[in-house]
Amino acid sequence: MWQLFYFPLCPFSRKVQLVLSEKKVPYTLQLAYPWEDDDRFHALNPAGKTPVLHHAERRLVLIDSQAICEYFEETESKSPLIPGSAAARAEVRRLTALFDDGLYGDVTEPLIYEKMKKRLILRQSPDSGVLRAAMRLTHEHLDYLDWLIDNRRWLAGAQLSLADFAAAAQLSVIDYLGGIDWSGHEQSHGWYRVMKSRPSFAPLLSQKMEGLPAPRHYADVNA
Amino acid sequence: MWQLFYFPLCPFSRKVQLVLSEKKVPYTLQLAYPWEDDDRFHALNPAGKTPVLHHAERRLVLIDSQAICEYFEETESKSPLIPGSAAARAEVRRLTALFDDGLYGDVTEPLIYEKMKKRLILRQSPDSGVLRAAMRLTHEHLDYLDWLIDNRRWLAGAQLSLADFAAAAQLSVIDYLGGIDWSGHEQSHGWYRVMKSRPSFAPLLSQKMEGLPAPRHYADVNA
Ligand SMILES: N[C@@H](CCC(=O)N[C@@H](CS)C(=O)NCC(=O)O)C(=O)O
Ligand SMILES: N[C@@H](CCC(=O)N[C@@H](CS)C(=O)NCC(=O)O)C(=O)O
Repeated sequence: MWQLFYFPLCPFSRKVQLVLSEKKVPYTLQLAYPWEDDDRFHALNPAGKTPVLHHAERRLVLIDSQAICEYFEETESKSPLIPGSAAARAEVRRLTALFDDGLYGDVTEPLIYEKMKKRLILRQSPDSGVLRAAMRLTHEHLDYLDWLIDNRRWLAGAQLSLADFAAAAQLSVIDYLGGIDWSGHEQSHGWYRVMKSRPSFAPLLSQKMEGLPAPRHYADVNA
Repeated sequence: MWQLFYFPLCPFSRKVQLVLSEKKVPYTLQLAYPWEDDDRFHALNPAGKTPVLHHAERRLVLIDSQAICEYFEETESKSPLIPGSAAARAEVRRLTALFDDGLYGDVTEPLIYEKMKKRLILRQSPDSGVLRAAMRLTHEHLDYLDWLIDNRRWLAGAQLSLADFAAAAQLSVIDYLGGIDWSGHEQSHGWYRVMKSRPSFAPLLSQKMEGLPAPRHYADVNA
């Protein structure tokens, strides 16, 4: 069986969990904090990052959320998440990269540092300037999501795709960290409620980071 | 015909150029500096990053170097660069991401900022602490390359792959910026000389960033 090394607020582990659930691939979870000494984890991934997906019996180690998603897209015909023509697939991958790199780097990563790492590891208070900058960039990203949803059925086009799951994975972590104000973003909010209601999302809504409670609305699929 | 928006020291544009040349896809080059106002470029890519690959006749805009490489892997059967089984392909993608994200973030990006942007745009001198840190991380990455080359024919396994081109693209920019000291890395150095001698590499060795001359050895395929 596949074993996923993850921690609750790692957006890339969330993206992989969503894809595995959508494709009905069974897996177990193994907690791994990249910033802690954990010889077994670092032996699997010398880069020391989550997610890592390990299949002991088949001696397979998959690393990097996009490499993992492409692997299951190639090996599981169920629920294609990079559907369509080569051009349509390029659009799914463009947006997935935009959320994995751009939204993560602009918002998720600084929020994880300021609100999670500083609180749980460094015992410092967050820098309010950094939080304000992340908040402003969140609005810019939500404006772009609004525009996509105004023009398309799903983010990358007519079909639900990895781009939707990649965006929702980042936003779920940002939301857990209290970083989303949906006002003025009705389209994105409606789309996120739909994503949150999918059965594949339920496990994410119950995963808690120890010592860091989620806001009340976080797990409410109607909020 | 495809038109590539690039600037000479963008490692991701270099990765795309290598792949297009290896697959014998014709294209023209269009200079674009992401940090300058360029309405045509920003209309094509709202994220404002190079590379962007545009095909006006077919109304296609491809964005993100990995999405671009996957597109040509799917549409051009010539010279497969993500070869083998699903597991082998996952290994190519893991390493490509390691170089595109890890090596870029640790070394190429800070060097571009300190040695190119500060000189050409900000008219400041580089921060020697940042340069020292990048130098140290370069050695760690080269250690890992040495290890790969000791254990495999090419970086990702028995066959030349996108991982080799992604690594060589980053290293060529680092080398242009005077950031590589090969001593103690004979294996990586030998592998890089082989990459540098490929016909697909020749155009990169002649591309110069205006106002920032390359070191003497940079374009010498025997150095
Ligand atoms: N491109 C990678 C990114 C993985 C990544 O950045 N993971 C973060 C956690 S979200 C990490 O492990 N960072 C190291 C740390 O926090 O010490 C992927 O998609 O899997
Ligand atoms: N993941 C993207 C990364 C592209 C990227 O970061 N490009 C840099 C240049 S190397 C950029 O345009 N940065 C914006 C700037 O320099 O202002 C890709 O692979 O294409």
